Formats: sequence, C-alpha cells, structure tokens
Amino acid sequence: MASAMRKLTVELGARAYPIFIGTGLIGNPALYGPYIRGRQVMIVTNETVGPLYLERVEAALSDYRIGRVVLPDGEQYKTLAVLDQIFTALLEQRFDRRCTLLALGGGVVGDMAGFAAASYQRGVDFIQVPTTLLAQVDSSVGGKTGVNHPLGKNMIGAFHQPRCVIADTATLDTLPDRELSAGLAEVIKYGLINDPVFFAWLEQNMAALKARDTSALAYAIERSCSDKAAAVAADEREAGQRALLNLGHTFAHAIETGMGYGTWLHGEAVGAGMCMAAAMSARLGWLSDAQVKRTEALIAAAGLPVRPPREVSAQRLLELIAVDKKVMDGRLRLVLLQDIGQAIVSANFDPNTLKQTLHAA
Amino acid sequence: MASAMRKLTVELGARAYPIFIGTGLIGNPALYGPYIRGRQVMIVTNETVGPLYLERVEAALSDYRIGRVVLPDGEQYKTLAVLDQIFTALLEQRFDRRCTLLALGGGVVGDMAGFAAASYQRGVDFIQVPTTLLAQVDSSVGGKTGVNHPLGKNMIGAFHQPRCVIADTATLDTLPDRELSAGLAEVIKYGLINDPVFFAWLEQNMAALKARDTSALAYAIERSCSDKAAAVAADEREAGQRALLNLGHTFAHAIETGMGYGTWLHGEAVGAGMCMAAAMSARLGWLSDAQVKRTEALIAAAGLPVRPPREVSAQRLLELIAVDKKVMDGRLRLVLLQDIGQAIVSANFDPNTLKQTLHAA
Repeated sequence: MASAMRKLTVELGARAYPIFIGTGLIGNPALYGPYIRGRQVMIVTNETVGPLYLERVEAALSDYRIGRVVLPDGEQYKTLAVLDQIFTALLEQRFDRRCTLLALGGGVVGDMAGFAAASYQRGVDFIQVPTTLLAQVDSSVGGKTGVNHPLGKNMIGAFHQPRCVIADTATLDTLPDRELSAGLAEVIKYGLINDPVFFAWLEQNMAALKARDTSALAYAIERSCSDKAAAVAADEREAGQRALLNLGHTFAHAIETGMGYGTWLHGEAVGAGMCMAAAMSARLGWLSDAQVKRTEALIAAAGLPVRPPREVSAQRLLELIAVDKKVMDGRLRLVLLQDIGQAIVSANFDPNTLKQTLHAA
Repeated sequence: MASAMRKLTVELGARAYPIFIGTGLIGNPALYGPYIRGRQVMIVTNETVGPLYLERVEAALSDYRIGRVVLPDGEQYKTLAVLDQIFTALLEQRFDRRCTLLALGGGVVGDMAGFAAASYQRGVDFIQVPTTLLAQVDSSVGGKTGVNHPLGKNMIGAFHQPRCVIADTATLDTLPDRELSAGLAEVIKYGLINDPVFFAWLEQNMAALKARDTSALAYAIERSCSDKAAAVAADEREAGQRALLNLGHTFAHAIETGMGYGTWLHGEAVGAGMCMAAAMSARLGWLSDAQVKRTEALIAAAGLPVRPPREVSAQRLLELIAVDKKVMDGRLRLVLLQDIGQAIVSANFDPNTLKQTLHAA
C-alpha cells in the first residue's frame, strides 16, 4: 500500500478521463465518487474475478444502490447472447439512465460492460476497473467496446469512453502466469509501434516483469497507458493513426476466430501476430533479419508463442483476414514495421507476400 | 410524379443531413449518390415491403455492390436475435467499415438497420428510406435506433444519425388503413406538443388525410418533419427539450410491452397514450374537460383508440411504467399538457394521480 498512486489523463475534451494506477486502489471510495452521477451502480464481473474482489469493491460503494452480474469467464462468452444477460439484470433491477456500469475484470468483462453501457437506454456511464495486465495496459483505455460474432472478432460494438479507469496493480498478484504473459504482448506492442526506448527497456527488464517485480510492473503499466492515451487522444475513432495500435491484431483475430474463441488467449495470439507482421515486413525488405530475431526473442522471453497454431491452415487464416475491420473498399490494410519502434499502416504490398508469410509462419 | 420535391435539413453540425420529401423518389439514383461513401450497400427490408419496392431501389443503386437482408415483419421481431441476422449477412458478404446500410421499410426496419449500422465494426453509415407514414414523420428522423427487450421497449440502442432520409410519399399508396392511422398519431403529437396552428389544421383536414388526399398528406409530412427536425437539432441526445417528443409514449410503451410486441401497432398505443396524458393533465387541473374532449375527438377521427386495451390491468401498466427511460434517480417524469400545443416534462405530480388516471382510463 506504500507505493504512490499515479494519475494519467486521456485528453478527449468533454470526454476526457483519468487513469489511476497504484496498489490497493479498488477499495478506496474516494476514487469512485467523483465519477458516479446517479445512485445506481451495476458491477459486471466474472466467476473468476468476482470471488476475489467483488466484496472489496462493494464495500467501497456502500453509499450506492449496487447490483451485480457475474458472467462466465472466457472469450467464448463475449457474445450478444451473454450481453443480453446484462440488459436483463439492469431492467429487472430497474436501473435508469443515470446509472453507472462498473467493469471489474479483464478485457472480456470490460468490452462487454462497456458495450452494454453504450447501448443500455442508448447510453449510460461506465467505469473500468481492470484486473488483468492486458486490461490495465490496453483494453480498459480508449473506449473500444463490443462483442464477437462467430464470423469475426470484435465485429459488433461501439466507441464509448469510460468516466475513469482504476488500475489496481495489487490485483495482478492473483493473475495466472499465462495471463501475465498475455498482457506483456500488448506492452511489447507499444515499444514496437513508436517507443524504441521502451522496447530496449523491456529487453533489459523482461525477467523482472516475469518475476512480477512490483516497480518494474508499475513502470511498464504507466508507460503503456501513457503511450495508449496519447494515441487515443490524437485519433479517438481510429480514422488514422490509432490504427497502429492494431499491430499484430489482424493476424491475431484470424488465429482466435480460426481456433475458436477462448482457446488461445488474445495476448498469445497478438504475440504470434506481431511476429508475423515482423516477418512480412522483412519479406518486403523493410526490416532486417536481425530486427525480426530481436522482436521474436523479446516475445518469446515474455512466454508467448512466436508462430501461429498448426491447427489453423495458412489458407484459413487468409480467408479470416479478408473480413478484418481494416479492409477498406475491398483492399486489405496491415500494420507493418519499418523499424523497431516505427510502425505504419499499409495497403502497399503484393497479396502474394502475405500468402508467402502465412505459409512460412 | 408531378409534385415538387421538398428538402429539409436536420441541423446537427458535422452530422447535419437532408430529408427529401416527394413522390417517386426511391427510384432516383441522383438522390442516393452523394450520401454513399464506399462501394457496398446493404439494403435491410422486410417480407412485406421488399416485394413492393426492393427492385426499384436496387435499380437506382446499380453502380454499387448490393446485398440484402429481408427480415420478418412486425414489432415482435425487433430483437437482438433478429439484429444478429443483419450482422451475419454483412460478415458473410464481407462488408467493410466503409459500407452503407439502407433501411427500406417502416419504423421497425429503420430502428434495426440504424442500430446495426451504429454497431457494425463500431459504426458505419446508413440511409433511411421510410415507407410508412409513421416512419416518414417520426422514426426515420433524429437518429434514435435500437431494439426491444422482453422487459421494456427500445431499451437497447444508440443515437446514430442517418446520412439522409428519402421519404417517397408514393409508397403510402400501398399502406394499409390501420398503418395510416398509426402514422397519424405521431402527426397529431406535433400539434399537441407545440404547434397549435397545426393541430387546428389537422382538425379541419383529418377527413382528407384519411382519404389519402395527396397534397394534404404531403403538407402533414413536411410540417411534421420540420417540427421534429427543430426539436432534434436543439437537443440531439435528449438531455432536455427533445423529451417532449415522447408525449404519450411512456403510456404507449407500457401498453405495447404489456400486450406483447406487435399486437397493437406503436401508433395505436401512442393514440391511447396521448389521451391518457391529456386525462392526467386534466386531473392535475392543467387542461379543461373541453380540451381533453377535443384531443380525444381528433385522435378518434384518425381511426385510433382513445383508451388502453382492457387486457392490460392498471396495476400492470403502473409496473411497466416504472422502468421507463424517463425515470431518473427513481423518480418518474411524464410528458403532460398545459394546453393544446404546450407540452411539458414534469415529475411534479402525486403518484396517486397517475394511479387514478390509469384506473379510470
């Protein structure tokens, strides 16, 4: 409890909001109060996280009328049908349009609670309380919400910014190693996109991060959130620059859809996906073999796969990539690398290069 | 085809858009072109409207790659599950985020296509081509989109403005009498809210409207759209003034949910709902008995019910009203009348007055 709380701001004008980072934050009533307008708070969590933290969050919100929805745990439950359970709970308990939804959990809980908040009565407030590394460094910041469709990941959703993000680093103590690694994929992503100094720091400190060194983790979370907040503030609805944050994600979504949601963790698929983006960039002559190796080495050191699963063929990946959200007027755009720390969005490649990359991966 | 086309604008800054009103518009390619950004257009219609007009709309859009989704007809199909059929069609046909959805039909088709457009890939364009009087004068204008939940009407949705509205008055030729009356409910609403001159005009011209007099209908549509466009421009997200447009709707939604969606038409429920709002206003001493009678007489002349259905008890209506979207911090607000042509939103009433009104209705 001794470490200082840090506060960052996502600069979005009327929709600006703070990100609080520190240990022991989820039990602090003073952090929630200024960001709740009405009297009703619906906590959305899952079967894994609820038993660990629900009681402390509810105690901090004892001034409010609290409801709760406990969802099943896993990407395979990020569906319209499970979303409907949140609406049913809100209506059964007569939550009105001044209510607040509070997402307590990882990326799946945050995406679903956020989309429910965007859609309930055409929009109510929500607060993100991320409890996984992936959610703390990536999915809880920036307002992307939504659910999956059997034919494509995150295809149904809304941009809906939270009122605040409360990232309690103490919740990472209970995080399984596999989930810690998954979160590190998004951390590495920020280095690769436009922060080469951070990338080098990660190479030096990956062992400490894997060992859950508190100060190393706190620094990585803060720097990641800071990088993400800047990208979101510059381009809230992903008309341009923000698309760089999707490095590795076109490949990753194809892996996740192809394997069936919930088989690979999202971060694992992003790890392999970033390696594929690097390999394709090398094929295009933009990246050296040494740079590809350096990228793969850091991703492997984080405990992540550097190749796609053998269960999904190159042909199947190609089909799934064709429905990606970054396709525009029939033309696929990919986030690729011109250097470590310099990503670009490009449609300027021979489709055969993509095909060769997938077959070689 | 001789009558002139009229153009109104909904003044919403960067989201401003035109409403075109006239006969024979749906077959005119020049009207669509400026409002379609990409190459893909998904037409969403229903089993009733599709056979009548789909061919002409598709001919006007022959420069584009066209897809179509034909939904079942009726309020009872305005659900998340049927919405998912639109997403499936979009994904199966690889529609990208530059695509446009085109709603061809009445209010249900417009609400669903609009919400699908708001949510597909977190937001794509859409165009409203309303083919019922109700959709032309009300639901196609203003950006309210959504679906129903078994526990409450329109509880899941988004504010998402169309790129343009094309109201072809010739499509009303095929409209059943019952649907014409349902549309007239929303027309009368504008008079009651803040346009007493229009209300008096409607008293003089109701017989002509019921007889489908072309120029009377065209005038009623244009004046209604103009009144609605002004209300929406002043308050896009219903923070205040726009709520007046819900006159009769809190009662109407309770009737529709209580009867089961699709039993009463929405406009029929609004007719009875406006009479209940008038009756309650009289109980509060705001409206004279003569004004209530005048209101009921016009609604009856439009061919609409002036009482709620006997199948739903006053007690059940009260329960359903308690989950209305206009409840705020547990307090019900209703749109009531201080005069014909002067509506207000008020929470300033004894709950017993509402109870008495429902029992007497």
